[in-house]
Amino acid sequence: MTDLVIMRHGESTANRDNLFTGWSDVPLTEKGIEQAYQAGDALARHGFEFSHVHTSMLQRAIVTANIVLDEIDQLWLPMTKSWRLNERHYGALRGLNKKEVAEKYGQEKFKEWRRSYKAIPLLLDEVEQDRRYDRYGTAIEPLGESLEMAYYRLLPYWEDEITPRLLEGKNQLVVAHGSTLRALIKFLEKISDDEIDQVEVENSVPIHYVFDEKLHILKKEELL
Amino acid sequence: MTDLVIMRHGESTANRDNLFTGWSDVPLTEKGIEQAYQAGDALARHGFEFSHVHTSMLQRAIVTANIVLDEIDQLWLPMTKSWRLNERHYGALRGLNKKEVAEKYGQEKFKEWRRSYKAIPLLLDEVEQDRRYDRYGTAIEPLGESLEMAYYRLLPYWEDEITPRLLEGKNQLVVAHGSTLRALIKFLEKISDDEIDQVEVENSVPIHYVFDEKLHILKKEELL
Repeated sequence: MTDLVIMRHGESTANRDNLFTGWSDVPLTEKGIEQAYQAGDALARHGFEFSHVHTSMLQRAIVTANIVLDEIDQLWLPMTKSWRLNERHYGALRGLNKKEVAEKYGQEKFKEWRRSYKAIPLLLDEVEQDRRYDRYGTAIEPLGESLEMAYYRLLPYWEDEITPRLLEGKNQLVVAHGSTLRALIKFLEKISDDEIDQVEVENSVPIHYVFDEKLHILKKEELL
Repeated sequence: MTDLVIMRHGESTANRDNLFTGWSDVPLTEKGIEQAYQAGDALARHGFEFSHVHTSMLQRAIVTANIVLDEIDQLWLPMTKSWRLNERHYGALRGLNKKEVAEKYGQEKFKEWRRSYKAIPLLLDEVEQDRRYDRYGTAIEPLGESLEMAYYRLLPYWEDEITPRLLEGKNQLVVAHGSTLRALIKFLEKISDDEIDQVEVENSVPIHYVFDEKLHILKKEELL
């Protein structure tokens, strides 16, 4: 049996201010930092021993992961920061207030952009320069993603970096984002395109999966 | 021209209490955390853009590195945590008060253990179990090291992980420990075995080297 814990970052300033975020690199709020400590305490109480930590290239996830590692006294763990775990790219919606978007474009369009599997948000006109993605060239920086597009760029990371380690019996911790974790849960639990709109992932609530040696799910629980 | 910045962690509880430490995993003090923020501010003022961060498997270095990355807004950088950058292993001296060791064994022996290149400290009787080194087997966990022994296990990391990146023109940040940085400085500046006892590395003071394309040192400066 192997443990996988996945969790979303603590509350960010954009969560607090009800903004679309995506690849914008916003910090945690004081509340978000406190939530990360609480998640770390919960994992410490359960006595998890991880062998690797996976997170995105966005500070709200990295800082959450660092706080959790400190609380479980496993700061020494190798940590991979991958763009494949980045939040879904919200295109030209990033930075906009969700309420205002709903008013401007209508509740139907708003819900579709936020929760449906295939809806693509308003796209950016051009890729924004950001040094952290330079080594990948311009190929990977999207102008905006549907949840489906995020799903397909996340999956290779699951297959190449997480699955092999779980199959070796090594417990893995993933600290990522609302939409990328929805995509991962969709994959793990074989949720249909239509039903994924009902899956919500709360800030900083660890979700614990127990797998057998073939990676069938034996158990799923939330840890707060 | 390529930049290398090396720095020792901020003040640890063992620094404050004047204890031999080595591979014991002690935390930073409040002062040490403040020192790390100041070092980060100094690097931010100088506008450094790194491509990789290297640190040890000990929390005083990792936390210092994380604070610096936060201050320079580069938390997304890949970070490698290697046992090869760990502090010199102080063997059976770790945890002992330096003043008491000097009184018990004499000032001469004490100075030799602390500062000479080849003196080996009192050794442990057996390797201490620590999960973080399990994946390396028992081969790498020493019973105690001279500075020379630390030098020779550090050097492969410099050669394999840091040098190739510098040669590609990518700026590197190393956050490590007093003795491993003395060993690195000995190598970089070709300091003799006899003269290395005069090199001190202060907590959390960034040391900046500028290299030419063949890795000759063009400049060295301290940044606080």
